[in-house]
Amino acid sequence: MKVNGKHFRSIWLEGKKIKVIDQRNLPHKFEIEELTNLEEVITAIKDMHVRGAPLIGATAGFGMYLAVKKAEEKKSEEIIEESAKQLIQARPTAVDLKWTVEKQLKEIKKGNSFKEKKEIAFKTAKKITDNSAEQCRKIGEFGVKLIKEISEKKKAKTVNILTHCNAGWLACVDFGTATAPIYKAQKNGIKIHVWVDETRPRLQGMLTSWELMQQKIPHTIIADNTGGHLMQKGLVDLCITGADRVALNGDAANKIGTYLKALAAKDNEIPFYVALPSSTFDLNLENGKNIPIEERNENEIKFIKGLNKEKITEVLIAPEKSSARNFGFDVTPARLIAGLITEKGICKLDKKSILKLFPEFKKRLINDLNE
Amino acid sequence: MKVNGKHFRSIWLEGKKIKVIDQRNLPHKFEIEELTNLEEVITAIKDMHVRGAPLIGATAGFGMYLAVKKAEEKKSEEIIEESAKQLIQARPTAVDLKWTVEKQLKEIKKGNSFKEKKEIAFKTAKKITDNSAEQCRKIGEFGVKLIKEISEKKKAKTVNILTHCNAGWLACVDFGTATAPIYKAQKNGIKIHVWVDETRPRLQGMLTSWELMQQKIPHTIIADNTGGHLMQKGLVDLCITGADRVALNGDAANKIGTYLKALAAKDNEIPFYVALPSSTFDLNLENGKNIPIEERNENEIKFIKGLNKEKITEVLIAPEKSSARNFGFDVTPARLIAGLITEKGICKLDKKSILKLFPEFKKRLINDLNE
Repeated sequence: MKVNGKHFRSIWLEGKKIKVIDQRNLPHKFEIEELTNLEEVITAIKDMHVRGAPLIGATAGFGMYLAVKKAEEKKSEEIIEESAKQLIQARPTAVDLKWTVEKQLKEIKKGNSFKEKKEIAFKTAKKITDNSAEQCRKIGEFGVKLIKEISEKKKAKTVNILTHCNAGWLACVDFGTATAPIYKAQKNGIKIHVWVDETRPRLQGMLTSWELMQQKIPHTIIADNTGGHLMQKGLVDLCITGADRVALNGDAANKIGTYLKALAAKDNEIPFYVALPSSTFDLNLENGKNIPIEERNENEIKFIKGLNKEKITEVLIAPEKSSARNFGFDVTPARLIAGLITEKGICKLDKKSILKLFPEFKKRLINDLNE
Repeated sequence: MKVNGKHFRSIWLEGKKIKVIDQRNLPHKFEIEELTNLEEVITAIKDMHVRGAPLIGATAGFGMYLAVKKAEEKKSEEIIEESAKQLIQARPTAVDLKWTVEKQLKEIKKGNSFKEKKEIAFKTAKKITDNSAEQCRKIGEFGVKLIKEISEKKKAKTVNILTHCNAGWLACVDFGTATAPIYKAQKNGIKIHVWVDETRPRLQGMLTSWELMQQKIPHTIIADNTGGHLMQKGLVDLCITGADRVALNGDAANKIGTYLKALAAKDNEIPFYVALPSSTFDLNLENGKNIPIEERNENEIKFIKGLNKEKITEVLIAPEKSSARNFGFDVTPARLIAGLITEKGICKLDKKSILKLFPEFKKRLINDLNE
């Protein structure tokens, strides 16, 4: 998508150089970072230079390439498995990370030398990244139908969409998950307006509003507390969020606070959709009860970063001695979700429908049982 | 309640001097302000040096005293009515403000000279303030029973209470509304812990945590997004919030985001109580649909104030060109509320129960009909 009119992905190659956008100082500063070794990749994931389940996955893909490079330098095959573990531990909730690293491990095993393994890892990472962008493009094509329907019902009046966190192209490789239908709607000339939850504590909503501003899509930032009131007042037609991990019954872990918006949507009979690529399904989970919920540092609550006199400045907002807790995600029960927007189509919220849309899941589950 | 071990109210007299705590720089700086004229009172209410429905009411009471003083100086009776209008318009949602100003107008009319009117206004303001504190004390006595019951059920294990915004003594004159039962529970030796919603955009949760810290009550600050997850995980036993205006059917306007927590409480079968003095009921409203919802400046969303190197500093957190909307309140439907904790007892959520607990309401309604 666009930054100052120029096309960007959130992760890209320049030759063999791996480049990402360091998202920590967005929306204030647009900074590019090169990831040259495994440690830098782990830091980038853990400290959220890159964030969003699909982008974390893509970055970890290249992390595995750098892991093989490290293994070659140190002449130790073990480093590959160790690195895989370190990468998976960098962020516990996003299942794409685990999926990518495990896929890489499987592929890398096919190489007979470090050189071959390295080539395989690089190619696989590149393929995962391109696939990820393509999946988001397809999510946009399926999701836009929902927006079009509402637009028609409203006789082409503006469709108001609420989103939480950033499931935009910055969180993916391109297009975004929750935002892909929005970008596609704009392309198709549908009148839209987006309510952007600021998404405390990390304020990822500011990334979403930055994306939408770059793309010239009308939008309004709101405090996370506001969505319920807007829904009560008829100012929201549709909710779309992303997801970090979705169980086989459709229970969806996503950024903390998603559950509250889904409750309000249900209470006001507003359709609440979750957009995700198939890699976000966790086939090991029948439901969302046991999805691990990351707890992060309390200082992400107690301090806020912003711009003061052109300088990124951190301010303490809490009483210094009060403590805070910082859960990163919550689980929205399937019963509150109208549908899952995936790269294969829009799916109902039950195991049967999910397995029907993704026959490869059924195959994998049967394989696992036979192993 | 206590500040650094010393007893304070949020508004008090030193002779005829009216003193308040300027709450804008809390929790970082504790500053006292003297209100010497009507204009200062209006600014203090509008710009939230003082905030919280009961304290706004008490401050407006003294505002009316200063209005009579101004009328005397300018030798114009009209100034009294004009000032009353200005005061009511300073904050549109809190009904205590309207209630106090109208009560003052009625009392002031009884005076035959500016001197008499001034004396009446001063006495009435003082009485309203003392009554307000006493009402909160009683709310504490009734509310603590709910906490005690849960404590007994949990065999004296810690009772976890979630609150939103600041309905503490800083929002009232003393004790607070939502916090009064909490302070009373501490006094009675019940083990408690409070989850404090930070309450964006104005971060009134930081006032609540400051209060609780001063009072040595265990508490944890959370992002507004977090309450639902905590309830799902069984980490909340009881919710108590304040209210800014409650309709005759029990629909309650309170700080934006209250509705979302009430939905989550309902979904997880956790009792959700609203604490309020009787002055917060709006007898003109059968339900909450037409409660006016204040919309404030977008910069309260786009900028955040905090402490940087000992200095109060404001930082921009949003893309500069993105716009924001800032609704101050939402309405929680009565169906989501377990009970109203008032100075007369705990009340069920329907007009009949409310009128039974407050026979003076019925009298006023009948009077209005006969007029």
